[in-house]
Amino acid sequence: MTLIVQKYGGSSLGTLARIQHVAQRIARTREAGHDVVVVVSAMQGETDRLIRLAQELAPEPNPREYDVLVSTGEQVSMSLLAMALCAINQPARSYTSQQLRILTDDTHTKARILDINTAPILEDLANSNVVIIAGFQGVNRRGDITTLGRGGSDTTAVAIAAILKAAECQIYTDVEGVYTTDPYVLPEASLLNEICFEEMLEMASLGAKVLQMRSVELASKHSMPIRVLSTFSQGKGTLVTDEEKIMQKRPVSGVAFSREEAIISLTGVPSRVGVEGHILTRVSEARIEIDMIAQNASNGETTDFTFTLQRHDHIRALAIIEALAKELGAISVRSRADVAKLSLIGLGMRSQAGIASTMFNALGSAGIPIQMITTSEIKISVVIDEHRLDQGISAVHNAFELDRLSTEKQPTYIEL
Amino acid sequence: MTLIVQKYGGSSLGTLARIQHVAQRIARTREAGHDVVVVVSAMQGETDRLIRLAQELAPEPNPREYDVLVSTGEQVSMSLLAMALCAINQPARSYTSQQLRILTDDTHTKARILDINTAPILEDLANSNVVIIAGFQGVNRRGDITTLGRGGSDTTAVAIAAILKAAECQIYTDVEGVYTTDPYVLPEASLLNEICFEEMLEMASLGAKVLQMRSVELASKHSMPIRVLSTFSQGKGTLVTDEEKIMQKRPVSGVAFSREEAIISLTGVPSRVGVEGHILTRVSEARIEIDMIAQNASNGETTDFTFTLQRHDHIRALAIIEALAKELGAISVRSRADVAKLSLIGLGMRSQAGIASTMFNALGSAGIPIQMITTSEIKISVVIDEHRLDQGISAVHNAFELDRLSTEKQPTYIEL
Repeated sequence: MTLIVQKYGGSSLGTLARIQHVAQRIARTREAGHDVVVVVSAMQGETDRLIRLAQELAPEPNPREYDVLVSTGEQVSMSLLAMALCAINQPARSYTSQQLRILTDDTHTKARILDINTAPILEDLANSNVVIIAGFQGVNRRGDITTLGRGGSDTTAVAIAAILKAAECQIYTDVEGVYTTDPYVLPEASLLNEICFEEMLEMASLGAKVLQMRSVELASKHSMPIRVLSTFSQGKGTLVTDEEKIMQKRPVSGVAFSREEAIISLTGVPSRVGVEGHILTRVSEARIEIDMIAQNASNGETTDFTFTLQRHDHIRALAIIEALAKELGAISVRSRADVAKLSLIGLGMRSQAGIASTMFNALGSAGIPIQMITTSEIKISVVIDEHRLDQGISAVHNAFELDRLSTEKQPTYIEL
Repeated sequence: MTLIVQKYGGSSLGTLARIQHVAQRIARTREAGHDVVVVVSAMQGETDRLIRLAQELAPEPNPREYDVLVSTGEQVSMSLLAMALCAINQPARSYTSQQLRILTDDTHTKARILDINTAPILEDLANSNVVIIAGFQGVNRRGDITTLGRGGSDTTAVAIAAILKAAECQIYTDVEGVYTTDPYVLPEASLLNEICFEEMLEMASLGAKVLQMRSVELASKHSMPIRVLSTFSQGKGTLVTDEEKIMQKRPVSGVAFSREEAIISLTGVPSRVGVEGHILTRVSEARIEIDMIAQNASNGETTDFTFTLQRHDHIRALAIIEALAKELGAISVRSRADVAKLSLIGLGMRSQAGIASTMFNALGSAGIPIQMITTSEIKISVVIDEHRLDQGISAVHNAFELDRLSTEKQPTYIEL
């Protein structure tokens, strides 16, 4: 018997009818001869409802009690799913993080899993039970309830799969899998059959819609294959796995993007060792998070320093940088708050030349000016005008023929 | 420092504003120099909502999973109350039954408390924390979650108070305390300052509106005084305590009643040893619960057997009794489904003669026929026509001048 870990997200468990549908899927996996361990999120909307209650009581709720509160959502969905399985004669037993001792560190609201007591799971599986585990929650050494942060149920599922050496960790959600770009923006986006962990991590915002990034890191560390698939169709989804296990090598895998960005440039800063650290320290002290950073040593005497950040921090950051410019004797500060980031991701960049030039030519042919460029080993990111973003995505996507990757394009959806 | 255990029911915690109000009350008890341990119910309506979810999934939900589900309600309210206390700078820590190891037997949905680990409570109190404990729930030896049945939070509170040897167990609710009869039926009902455990137990349905009966038994066993009082006023409520601690002795304490009753009589049953047990066995095999029983050995040869039951079981019970009447060769079966029970409760009945006659005379003067009588040491119950019930309550209540007991009659309510 192979062991499959399945994780069902909030939308998959959003109504009692959906919970019954999920119970049927689990029962079919059992009938196919697999042992099944299930990790559940809270029913759709429930965690948000609980967070609202906490915030109405206190702007900064006590973190220990906050975790006690929000962890109830998974306890509700796990028991309902277990009841639904028992009702169709598939024995099932549910466990909270306390009952299973999913041991974490002490960081309330963003804890990390340290250990899991697998004895009750193995005993239940041996007795033909489906084991259902509350995602998102843990317990620290003192017995206090902790939570793993938004999307934490994915991490619970991967951790359970890794420790039990499951054949596969299946993440059921309301999309078909991972696409070459957002199909809402570009309808010809292709569903990827496979993608490697590194590419998935670089997908960032695009990937984060389907998987918590920390779960991908954990899966990568343990070489645990993740399959992202839809609860509401019969598609095979996308397998996220090690690079060497990818069957069809492709130079590029996707076009990711993020809106609501801003860019700030400080030009003609007199060169001095440590000046970049000095600038960033001042910004981070104001709790402003920075995304891309580029620096050009234009000549020996001065340097140009550019970075991007989330738009809502733009005005605060600009005030800090303008003050800094005076202090440092910089020539000018330029900034724009109407930009977006567009990124091309692909393992093939390592070996194949010309990928960057194809990307820049595609943007150039579309008449889209590039305002900033940064690169990593498997990712090239550019900053462009936000109102040209959709056009840019289309141009780059077409240039690499990403619309031709799909093998299954119109999955059959089940209405629930 | 004296230790006070306070229990807040669902209506006391029904909204965030009410939770904040309760936090203020707790903080004031702390300021008055007491250690405080709080037991909470689920927010009003929450347990019913969870039960509906379970029943929509399965007519007979798996009992282990049912308890996992319904125990989440208390976890929500306890964490919200702890947050509200922290927000007004009163440190508070909440505990589930698992965290505190409130050990129970294995009877899911109706478990009994066996032991409580008090070490974390004592440590927190020593550090000036308010300790908040989820009522209604426990955990069995295997670590499965159990629940104590409807109103079980009262029992949790009394059990905690007893094991910690608290000075008093205060049960906060939405009524002022225990009345001589239901003030909705008889507006001149008096609020009792005190009542002893035995009287409270005999109050049954009347008392059950304010306290779970099992909690009264437990308090009686441990001589733990319970004070029933309103969350929304400043009244002193009703103290439920040992008979010898009652300051003002009264012959009678209250008039209890229950509607929706039915009565069945089997007359002229040929006398035979064990015939009564035979009749009741047949009824209880059909899972019909019986309330009052009276038997008259009218002569040496036959006996009359009468009992009452809940009206919704009347038709089923009547069919069983009619079959039995043939088997046993009884003369006749009579039954009515439009009756109610009226009970007079008072410790004074033990010593004072004439209480029964005063009661029957009061009913007689009002022209109300009595259809059945049973008595216990401190209670006399009669069955009368349901449409004469309110009139009967008034007649008996007046005959014993119960309207003159009140010391505080119009408490000031707080609107929340």
